Amino acid sequence: GKKVLIVYAHQEPKSFNGSLLKIAVEELTKQGCSVTVSDLYAMQFEPRATRNDIVGRLHNSEAFNYGVETWEAYKRGGLSRDVVEEQKKVQEADLLIFQFPLFWFNMPAILKGWMDRVLVQGFAYDLSKAYDGGLLQGKLSLFSFTTGGSQEMYSKGSISGDIRYVLWPMQHGIMHFCGVKVLEPHICYAPENVSEEKRKEMLTAWTQRLKTLWKEEPIDCSPEWYFK
Amino acid sequence: GKKVLIVYAHQEPKSFNGSLLKIAVEELTKQGCSVTVSDLYAMQFEPRATRNDIVGRLHNSEAFNYGVETWEAYKRGGLSRDVVEEQKKVQEADLLIFQFPLFWFNMPAILKGWMDRVLVQGFAYDLSKAYDGGLLQGKLSLFSFTTGGSQEMYSKGSISGDIRYVLWPMQHGIMHFCGVKVLEPHICYAPENVSEEKRKEMLTAWTQRLKTLWKEEPIDCSPEWYFK
Repeated sequence: GKKVLIVYAHQEPKSFNGSLLKIAVEELTKQGCSVTVSDLYAMQFEPRATRNDIVGRLHNSEAFNYGVETWEAYKRGGLSRDVVEEQKKVQEADLLIFQFPLFWFNMPAILKGWMDRVLVQGFAYDLSKAYDGGLLQGKLSLFSFTTGGSQEMYSKGSISGDIRYVLWPMQHGIMHFCGVKVLEPHICYAPENVSEEKRKEMLTAWTQRLKTLWKEEPIDCSPEWYFK
Repeated sequence: GKKVLIVYAHQEPKSFNGSLLKIAVEELTKQGCSVTVSDLYAMQFEPRATRNDIVGRLHNSEAFNYGVETWEAYKRGGLSRDVVEEQKKVQEADLLIFQFPLFWFNMPAILKGWMDRVLVQGFAYDLSKAYDGGLLQGKLSLFSFTTGGSQEMYSKGSISGDIRYVLWPMQHGIMHFCGVKVLEPHICYAPENVSEEKRKEMLTAWTQRLKTLWKEEPIDCSPEWYFK
């Protein structure tokens, strides 16, 4: 069976995001996948990139450079335990699913901190190993999120612009940069502002999509997809 | 004199970001501005949006909804002290400067957490008070950051795309949404990979820009500026 890591960033299990997580765990497990969940708020995951991420002596203690220090620490096995554990989960996964509510046209800080701290140089990319040559080649990713605004607000020509504009930094700038292929995002628009019936339809649609997920082709993660 | 809040996200005072901060504090103070700095790492600023941000009883303790709870708490003066202090600084400022290194096509998590926790509904925007009607009207903002990649990499047609693509969520999705006008970003490309002479030129350019900053017109923060 395939291995899936779900990185989940919502405080409340009874939330709509919580329901989407539950569906993914159940459906993928039913398919025979091995599913791991990093429940960031429950783990009280540290989002701040600090000196604490390096165990032992610094490469250059005169002037702290997070990028250089984590790269050096990665090479000698000196990253903090919470980061190493997340890297192990990423290493083993065939598919990474990110489940979160969109906060300010982006992921919540706790999830951004996961990206900042886990995907360090040497592990996820290297000097000349980025984009299609990124070190996490062979893996798939999927951004699944809820919004506050409606689908109409997130369309080209509307005030909030095409929803794809906000996907560029996440899908291209992070996942593609690390060599990870990107499946179509799964977006539930404004679940708090629709009827209970519509919410149920959204949950059903997620279950249905997951049933044939492994047959999907990744998107063409190029500027044309985002800004055409 | 004008009031300026600099929200600064770098761990190391001796860094290039640290030099840019120092220059801004000195130059703006010399002009007679009153300058406040929120040094997020030094403050150990909390980036996680949790129940701890609400003092006292929750509006709905059955299912925690961060957006609803912080909105309600704001109205009754029940937000946590660190958030209230940042809101006071924002309220008093004529200009917000964000100084940080670009991490993964975006701001570092600690700064994203500042946005998530400080700019709550009721304070920064409200139901029908967003974009040009946002509650922080009358203020200016400026994103000043360093990159790892070169200017050539962040140009249209290059692999990392036009640098303006990454500005959309920050400038439009956050600042414009709150009614804050946006000045041209100040971008120092790859300071770690250029000569000492070039780095000095970059610092001088920042000083020079700050001298005439108050005469600048805000950008036209519309999709055309970002994606033309």
